Amino acid sequence: MAGTDRSKSRRDGDTGPAIILVEPQLGENIGFAARAMANGGLSDLRLVRPRDGWPNDKAVASASGADSLLDAARLYGSVESAIADLRRVYATTARPREMRKPVVTIRQGVKDIRKAVLREERCGILFGPERMGLTNDNAALADTLLTIPLSPGFSSLNLGHAVMVAAYEWYQAGDSTPARSLPRSKTPPATKDELIALFRHLESELDTCGFLKDKAKRPSVVRNLRSLFQRSEMTEQEVRTLRGIIVCLTEGRRRPRRGSDA
Amino acid sequence: MAGTDRSKSRRDGDTGPAIILVEPQLGENIGFAARAMANGGLSDLRLVRPRDGWPNDKAVASASGADSLLDAARLYGSVESAIADLRRVYATTARPREMRKPVVTIRQGVKDIRKAVLREERCGILFGPERMGLTNDNAALADTLLTIPLSPGFSSLNLGHAVMVAAYEWYQAGDSTPARSLPRSKTPPATKDELIALFRHLESELDTCGFLKDKAKRPSVVRNLRSLFQRSEMTEQEVRTLRGIIVCLTEGRRRPRRGSDA
Repeated sequence: MAGTDRSKSRRDGDTGPAIILVEPQLGENIGFAARAMANGGLSDLRLVRPRDGWPNDKAVASASGADSLLDAARLYGSVESAIADLRRVYATTARPREMRKPVVTIRQGVKDIRKAVLREERCGILFGPERMGLTNDNAALADTLLTIPLSPGFSSLNLGHAVMVAAYEWYQAGDSTPARSLPRSKTPPATKDELIALFRHLESELDTCGFLKDKAKRPSVVRNLRSLFQRSEMTEQEVRTLRGIIVCLTEGRRRPRRGSDA
Repeated sequence: MAGTDRSKSRRDGDTGPAIILVEPQLGENIGFAARAMANGGLSDLRLVRPRDGWPNDKAVASASGADSLLDAARLYGSVESAIADLRRVYATTARPREMRKPVVTIRQGVKDIRKAVLREERCGILFGPERMGLTNDNAALADTLLTIPLSPGFSSLNLGHAVMVAAYEWYQAGDSTPARSLPRSKTPPATKDELIALFRHLESELDTCGFLKDKAKRPSVVRNLRSLFQRSEMTEQEVRTLRGIIVCLTEGRRRPRRGSDA
């Protein structure tokens, strides 16, 4: 049995959890679910008795290019058959259930699934129909209940949105995008020599025009201006641009101004 | 200005970021965005030149009850006017931009926004039109670019889904749902006395029926069975149920079996 399971998961080239839509009503939502799965790098879509039959044109329209997931979707007559080859099953649920079964948040759940996948244990997540969610009997087939914490004032989640959150969390659990970054520019960061030359250029012009005439305040105004420009982590090119701007702005003082009422 | 800003944010009763949809094309997606915002406890929806005008029946249909957000949505003629009262603006972007501007993941972004909110600094998140995303000129109005890490193979995100991810992350950053829990049952956990009595009952019946007849293996089989049942963290009621099951299953050995071919 384990052998069959493994060869199947290799054939699929798919290590993420199966997304199992139980009696989905709107084809549109099946398409949205497929698109969300593709966004999160998931591909094993299973449908249990979709209300409007299968295939479904509305699903194709809302999948926006995730057609290969729809083409590969497998159709089942029961939840039992849809989960037969899986080793861990999670049931999404909005409301608390009269069931003494572990409950994990979706964020914790995807971490657990990633560990199970490393042990080659295929997992799946059950999503109930739009209006009612999973029946208690179907939720009882799962090992674990999966909860998506949301505002208690408005916790009714669209089916496509629920799959989006699951697919998004699945992807984040394996993603290494830095939380914070500043893109490198084409020119290197300015040297301190270039930066200090800019500061001196600006301050000398500000002395000339009288902006720094208050001798008592001058040191702190200069420090604050230098801090402001340093916070921008300027490149060589940006320092050259600012120096050009200072030259341009101060030219008017040397030449008579031209204009309508000058 | 700060005074106006603060009184406005108090009047709104809303501390989360404004969600600003720039030139959204489909009313349906505006409704999905409103529903997603309600799920995440957000309420300040702003629309910049929605393509099909405003109000929009399709938005009402897909909002599924989040009508109050649509009613309160504010309409603007430009991104500049839509962000005028904000102090920090984030621009969602799928593709890298030719802009040297800080980039944060949505998960980091909502943490930053929560800190800004504590300082009473109103924030907003810009979402571009369905087909193209934000123009570079509109993205340039933001302090920070916001990225939603997704599968490089399929990173085209539905507008409603993008707002769902933002609203979901916003809610998670302030949520205290335990990552893992086991609901308490109505009856208390079994005492160890009740549990050991169950084990002894089972083991004595297994001795009687011969399941434990291999004396060498008996100790480890007994330990494994006890571990199996202990993992379930049974309640008093569950222990009583299992003892009832053992009694029922073993009754047949005492009474002649009744059946079609007995």
